[in-house]
This record gives sequence, C-alpha cells and structure tokens, in this order.
Amino acid sequence: MTDRAARRPAVRDDLADLSPYGAPQLDVPVRLNTNETPWAPPPAFTAALADRISAGLDLHRYPDRDAVALRTALAEREGLAPDRVWAANGSNEVHVQLFGAYAGAGRTLLLFRPGYSAHPLLARVTGTTVVTEDLDEDFRLTPEAARAAVEAHRPAIVCVASPNNPTGIPVDPDAVRALHDGFDGLVVLDEAYVELAPDPGEGRALLDELDRLVVVRTFSKAWRMAGLRLGYLLAHDWVVQDLLKVRLPYHLDAITQAAGCIAVELAEDVTAHIADLVTERERLLAALRATDGVTVWPSAGNFLLLRVDRAREVFEAMLASGVLVRDFSTLPRLEGCLRVTVGTPEENDRFLSALKESLR
Amino acid sequence: MTDRAARRPAVRDDLADLSPYGAPQLDVPVRLNTNETPWAPPPAFTAALADRISAGLDLHRYPDRDAVALRTALAEREGLAPDRVWAANGSNEVHVQLFGAYAGAGRTLLLFRPGYSAHPLLARVTGTTVVTEDLDEDFRLTPEAARAAVEAHRPAIVCVASPNNPTGIPVDPDAVRALHDGFDGLVVLDEAYVELAPDPGEGRALLDELDRLVVVRTFSKAWRMAGLRLGYLLAHDWVVQDLLKVRLPYHLDAITQAAGCIAVELAEDVTAHIADLVTERERLLAALRATDGVTVWPSAGNFLLLRVDRAREVFEAMLASGVLVRDFSTLPRLEGCLRVTVGTPEENDRFLSALKESLR
Repeated sequence: MTDRAARRPAVRDDLADLSPYGAPQLDVPVRLNTNETPWAPPPAFTAALADRISAGLDLHRYPDRDAVALRTALAEREGLAPDRVWAANGSNEVHVQLFGAYAGAGRTLLLFRPGYSAHPLLARVTGTTVVTEDLDEDFRLTPEAARAAVEAHRPAIVCVASPNNPTGIPVDPDAVRALHDGFDGLVVLDEAYVELAPDPGEGRALLDELDRLVVVRTFSKAWRMAGLRLGYLLAHDWVVQDLLKVRLPYHLDAITQAAGCIAVELAEDVTAHIADLVTERERLLAALRATDGVTVWPSAGNFLLLRVDRAREVFEAMLASGVLVRDFSTLPRLEGCLRVTVGTPEENDRFLSALKESLR
Repeated sequence: MTDRAARRPAVRDDLADLSPYGAPQLDVPVRLNTNETPWAPPPAFTAALADRISAGLDLHRYPDRDAVALRTALAEREGLAPDRVWAANGSNEVHVQLFGAYAGAGRTLLLFRPGYSAHPLLARVTGTTVVTEDLDEDFRLTPEAARAAVEAHRPAIVCVASPNNPTGIPVDPDAVRALHDGFDGLVVLDEAYVELAPDPGEGRALLDELDRLVVVRTFSKAWRMAGLRLGYLLAHDWVVQDLLKVRLPYHLDAITQAAGCIAVELAEDVTAHIADLVTERERLLAALRATDGVTVWPSAGNFLLLRVDRAREVFEAMLASGVLVRDFSTLPRLEGCLRVTVGTPEENDRFLSALKESLR
C-alpha cells in the first residue's frame, strides 16, 4: 500500500491546499445554515413538472444544447433578447464558465472581503489567481475604494455580490460604475438574493449603462429551487457567444430546462412567499436588535449576520438544541459572526429561543 | 460600437481559436448523428420519476452534495464500495473534473486518433495541453504503441475510449495495462458504450488490477437517458477524494440523483432494448458490407463507421432525404468517413435506402 500511495498522481499544485466546499449537511430539526427558502415550491409547480415528465421529455435524446426555450422565457422577463441570457447548473457553474472564459491560469479575479465563500473556490477550480481587498468597517464598498482596487490590481474580472453574502448589504450602484470605469475587464454582479432586496431592479438597470457588466442570478433562493441547480446570467451578447467555448456540450439537462420554463410560467405562484419571508426577516432583525449581547446588520437577503461573544460556543449550543446556523466566526473580518437564514416563523422562533438560551 | 468592441475583454488566449462543440441539432425525421438510443426510457421509469417529483423532492433544499444514495446504488452493481464511485452531469463533467484535478495548465493529456471529439475540447476547457498519437492503420492500439506513447509524452493523464468512438473498436486490455505500466499518471478508460460491447466487464476487471485506472461510464447511451446528463466513474478511493476539490458545490441536482437511483432500480427494464439494438447493429453491418462502394468497420458500440467516396456529397444527399448522420470525412485519419447511429429498424431501413440512393 505504501508503494501504491507513492505512485498516486498528485492533484494540481495550485489545488493541493484547497479544502472542498463544505457547509455541513446535518440532519437537524431547524436548518438555517445555507440560505434555502423554508417552503417547498408550490404544488402547481411540482404537478406541472411531473406531468411534463409523464408526457415524455424525450430523455433518450440529448437536451437542447443552447436551452433556447428557457433562455427565451428568462429573457422576456427582463426585456432582453434571448442571446443576452445564458443558463447553467446553478450560478456556481455560471461563475465557473465566466472565470474559465475570461480568467483562468495567469489571470486574476478581484474579490472583496467579506464576501461569498464559494467565489474564490470556484475561481481556483479554473486556475484563476484570486486577489482580495477589504470592504470598509461597515462592510460597504465606496466608489472610491472600488476604483482604487481595480486600478491597483488590473484584474481580468471583478466580482461583487449584491446583496452581499454574508452581510446582506446591497452594493451601491455608483460603486459598480466605479469598478466598471476603473479598468477594462469584466464586472460580475452576483445577484443571488436580489429578489429579496428593496430594489431588485438595480443590476438590470445598470446593464443598459455598462458595457462589460454581467448580472448573475439563481433559482436557489427566492425561486426556492436549490435542489434544481439552475442559475443564469444577463449580459451583452458577446459574453454569451464567448461562453459557448467553455460550456460543456449539453451541460444543462432536459428536466432542468423544462422545470425552469415551468417556474417562469408560474413565477407569481413560485415567488409568492417573498413578502412573507421579508416580513419574517424584519421581525427577526427587530428581535435580534432587542437581544442583549447581539450585534446584527440589516439585510436585503434571506439571512441575517450577527455578532456575539464566544460565537463558536453559541453555535455549538444552538446546534445541540437542534438549530443549525452558519459559523463564520474564525474568518477574517467576520470574527464572532454567525449567519442565520430566515426560516418559517416557527423555525425563527426556535432559533431566537436557542440563541437567547445559549447567550445566558 | 467600435469603441465598445475594442474594450471587450478577450477570452483566454488558449481558447481563442476554439470552436464550440457542435454536432448539428437539426429537426429531421431520422436523426442518427449523436449515438442516442432510438427508444425512450420505459414508461415504468418515467412514471416512477413523476411520482417522486409529485411526492416532493424537497427542491427548496440543496441536493445531497455527495450523492450518496446514487453512488451507493451504482457501487452495488459493480461490487465496489460507494467511496470508489463518483457521479456528475454526464461523463463530460466527469472528464472535466478528472482533467481539472490531475491535469490543467502546464500539464498534458495524451489522446489517440481517431477518438472521441469531445475529449480534446473538454481538456482545453481546463487549460490542459493535449498531445495526440495515431492509432494504427486498423484503428487499433497495440500494447507496444501504447507503452511507447506514454513513455514519449509522460502525460499527466492518458485517455482511451473502449469501445472507441467513432470506430466502435474495443481497446485491447493489454494495451490498457501497457499504458498504465509505462508511466506514473492516470489512465482514464472511457466506457461510454461498453454495455453494447461483447465483453462489458473488461474495464471493471482491470480496475482490480491497475492502481491508477479510472473507468468512466454514462447514462446517455445504453441507459437511453442522454437528456438526463448523468455520468459516473469507478476508481480507487483517493481519486474520489481528490475530485471533491474541483467539483462545484452541489454539482448534481436532486432530480438527476433521484432519476439515477430509479434507473438503477429498474435497470433490467431500462436496458432491456440492448439485445434488439445489437441485433440491429449486426443487421446494419451485414447490409453495409453487402453495399458496393462502402467500407464498414465492425462495432462494439451503438454506431457504425463507414467510408465512402465523395462522403460530403453522400452526407448532404442523405440529409436532403431526411436522414442525418455524422460527417467526419474531413478529419485526419477519417477521410471519407461517416458515422451512423443504430436506430429503430425503420430508421435503419431509411438510412440504408438513402445511402444506396446517394451512392448511385
């Protein structure tokens, strides 16, 4: 066995120290750690999808390689031509395709910290070098800092999330403009949570103004379909043309394409829970603000960032009582921070009780 | 607009000349160009899948990141532990994950020609350098040539398909042994069509013998689910551990995982058509052998390679009469060659008529 181990091929040097992405998938009663929507898609959606499958989706045939029906449906919602929309297996794959086409080995992606933990991981998979700048003390990106950062690093791509994760803070549109005008590369605006934000149209509006902006969206959050793995982007048409070079042949399966089309048809029903979720978010925010020993940030997403003393102990105590949140407390800039997903009213009550109990 | 065009970010230099993968997806009556199975999955499968979706797959939750149920089901069929099986979105993604982990920028993939057209494309997406050696005059890989090739190129990975595509010829197991023993890298055996071959157990048997062998399989061919995008690999456990570093978080959606489990449960029914397909392949082979002006190779896959004069004209004439095959006639080593997928008896008859008509 020693011999065998010695002859194992080694993974790429630049991946050797990489830890696989790993939010724990634990089977606990209250799972508030991955920003899923707590309610399943409506019965009308699952019934329509089951009907489509029963009717036969020609599964023995390869799917439409260009997902034209789905892209057309998504494009119509945005008042864009279908050749400005692209879809893939979750916004993760959308990001990987962007990084693979425009960055990769020898090129750089600029990120801001704190930010979405998967961005640097997805970049490294493509061999892209990641550079990071800090957000300001309030976790905000000013136009001045934005411009200075792209001018300093001259990256191939800069990526910001709005609302940002895990802070919940939307990015100032002037900061996006400053990024764009400060260099010649691609600006990727990750709008994973935008449907929960007070102004969900900001990225789409910026797209009419900025030539090198890409807006990335997902069905995992407000569309409540994390299990479907569907993400998409809005961009200028040349971006979509370039992505054809790096997408895998037939990357998006026929069922996911059909499910996406049905979700768009039933969009009103599928996203009907958003108002309730926002109400719960604000209730949770108020309750956390009223809790001694907790600092909490207002959020435009379906989660809240909070800071407590002895955060790891608090996390463990909550977990022991069946409530799982996300522990960021040992990460730079996020010392003492936990992130809680907005759940059902009952889940949120259990979280609040468990938190108060653990803070005693 | 000139200004805008000038400021577009450029795709990676190594991708600039890459053409997107593009077997034509044309709406013609007889589509025999992408090696799909002509029969849809059985009603028992679609009914079971529709039922699972109706019952609710918790689509609002992220899927099992490690696809444990599916990998366990696949592993049991092979008498392997689940930690030696990995699944992804089609064998394309399996290959990209392997190339991404063990090759990538600055490392080399060795391929043999003629071979599967997507292998070099998938490698280039990961930044891997591709080197190619020719198969012999009979499109075969001898153990001597195999060993010489890996010794000459010292690649990170060598990949061969068995049965090979587009020739339909299985690889000599001694050639796989020679590849393996000739260098220290990974040997990837792409068994996309193996269920159609006379001896479908060869790769699995080699896995017990060779430390650095990976066997890749797909649900797109004999499992007749190209639309599902499901592929998997059999390997030693350290390969699966390494792939965790490059797989995208939650890369395989919940419906595909469920569909794969159902397909394995119903394997006998899902693959019941194989005997009929092999009968048709042999009938088609005999008919082509009896056709003047046609050279044809015996095949262990669900397709046949044939050589004719004026191949492009023959291709166009068949297409005009509603029969689409794959045109490889301008590729090195495949001058004058077309590839036809084995279809239904009626489709095969139409192909034979169209071919004879076009050869007149």
